[in-house]
Amino acid sequence: MLGLAGLTALAVAAPAPAAAAPRSGVVDLTHTLTPQLPVWPGNPPMVMVPVAWHESGGFGQFALGYWEHTGTHLDAPAHRIPGATTTDALAVDDLVAPLVVIDISAEAAADADAVVTVADIDNWRSRHGEIPERAFVAMYSGWEHRLDRPSTFLNLDERGTPHAPGFSAEAARYLVEHCAIVGAGVDTLSLDCGADPEYGAHTALLGAGRYGVEMLANLAAVPAAGATVVIGAPKHAGGTGGPCRVLALT
Amino acid sequence: MLGLAGLTALAVAAPAPAAAAPRSGVVDLTHTLTPQLPVWPGNPPMVMVPVAWHESGGFGQFALGYWEHTGTHLDAPAHRIPGATTTDALAVDDLVAPLVVIDISAEAAADADAVVTVADIDNWRSRHGEIPERAFVAMYSGWEHRLDRPSTFLNLDERGTPHAPGFSAEAARYLVEHCAIVGAGVDTLSLDCGADPEYGAHTALLGAGRYGVEMLANLAAVPAAGATVVIGAPKHAGGTGGPCRVLALT
Repeated sequence: MLGLAGLTALAVAAPAPAAAAPRSGVVDLTHTLTPQLPVWPGNPPMVMVPVAWHESGGFGQFALGYWEHTGTHLDAPAHRIPGATTTDALAVDDLVAPLVVIDISAEAAADADAVVTVADIDNWRSRHGEIPERAFVAMYSGWEHRLDRPSTFLNLDERGTPHAPGFSAEAARYLVEHCAIVGAGVDTLSLDCGADPEYGAHTALLGAGRYGVEMLANLAAVPAAGATVVIGAPKHAGGTGGPCRVLALT
Repeated sequence: MLGLAGLTALAVAAPAPAAAAPRSGVVDLTHTLTPQLPVWPGNPPMVMVPVAWHESGGFGQFALGYWEHTGTHLDAPAHRIPGATTTDALAVDDLVAPLVVIDISAEAAADADAVVTVADIDNWRSRHGEIPERAFVAMYSGWEHRLDRPSTFLNLDERGTPHAPGFSAEAARYLVEHCAIVGAGVDTLSLDCGADPEYGAHTALLGAGRYGVEMLANLAAVPAAGATVVIGAPKHAGGTGGPCRVLALT
């Protein structure tokens, strides 16, 4: 009854969220996609071109163009690993998952190269219990406040290297090997700390067939435990990722 | 607890689905987006162009280009009504809704211009009870079986007019005025019967601030009542619609 059997089964391992958690029903974890949003160095902004008008034919329409890894977007395993799972081949059951939010905003305010560590995962557990099976684990670094000044979001140094928080490679490996997660997300432009030249978190997550979501919004509005996330992943054939609508059910 | 309070409230008005309904947890109502999918007459197919390679830089990426109303996609009110709600301004609470499926596949098999009528809505009610408040009402016409021969999906006559099922303008008006729906969807390329030159269903739905979803997949795999739909709507600023991931929670 209620069409919620599957969701309930997914969420049943999650402990109760903190008493003060907001309860708004559906929380949008997606940034509005505009040409002004920061993109990874070397990537172009999205473009929109009108192709149909209400005045002639009764309908308006735009053509859209963007590189896949733009805005709040999915990283499919194929983004990192040749021949790995593409956007159209993700398991649909993996797109609805218990949402775990690991808050490193205090560290990130002091250090732009802050990372989620295994100790941060342990700290989350000590407060909220085990990481639920098949969870989606998101890093909240508070980075979106920098969108008022887009250059501080990417935060390039004088050599052109970005400095923004992400998962440490060790924490990413730990989540894959010990926590049976379906995917991981960040509120920055990279699963890795921007300054990691090895992209160890990308390799650990995507190399294990998990998906990533980058540039999440609004994670401060959801509880650290107890919500369910729905990843409205793109489904174009053969893709390596793409903009996606991410909703939290609280 | 369980993060499902909002969803439960939304779904609580829906009666139990038929006993034989499949229970797979998450059902994907989205077609895979390819250049081969039929598009509305005059619209181009989507394109993908590689822009990054694993061999140089360690990551693969494509550039995507498409007109908004391609594949399984959203119609925002602004598609039909100048100045109306755009993709980025849809109410997020409206993207999670009780799913109502009205099956006209028998009529559609006999008549390519078959429409959902007010009588079909009444027939659904007599079997399943009242249409839940804030529901998403989908027409199932069985049209996706025609994708094996794409020209039969669009089904143009010798004058270039498409013939495929949709909502009658009267039924669309009825759903808006009497059933408090959030949106409506079809498994064809238009909310209207293809042969309707007035686009009365588009006008009734989008003109009342409701959204539409066209080219839904897989509606035969969900119950007529009792599932919850999540519309992974696009969120580009100022858009009239766009490809979206649509998931049913059963």
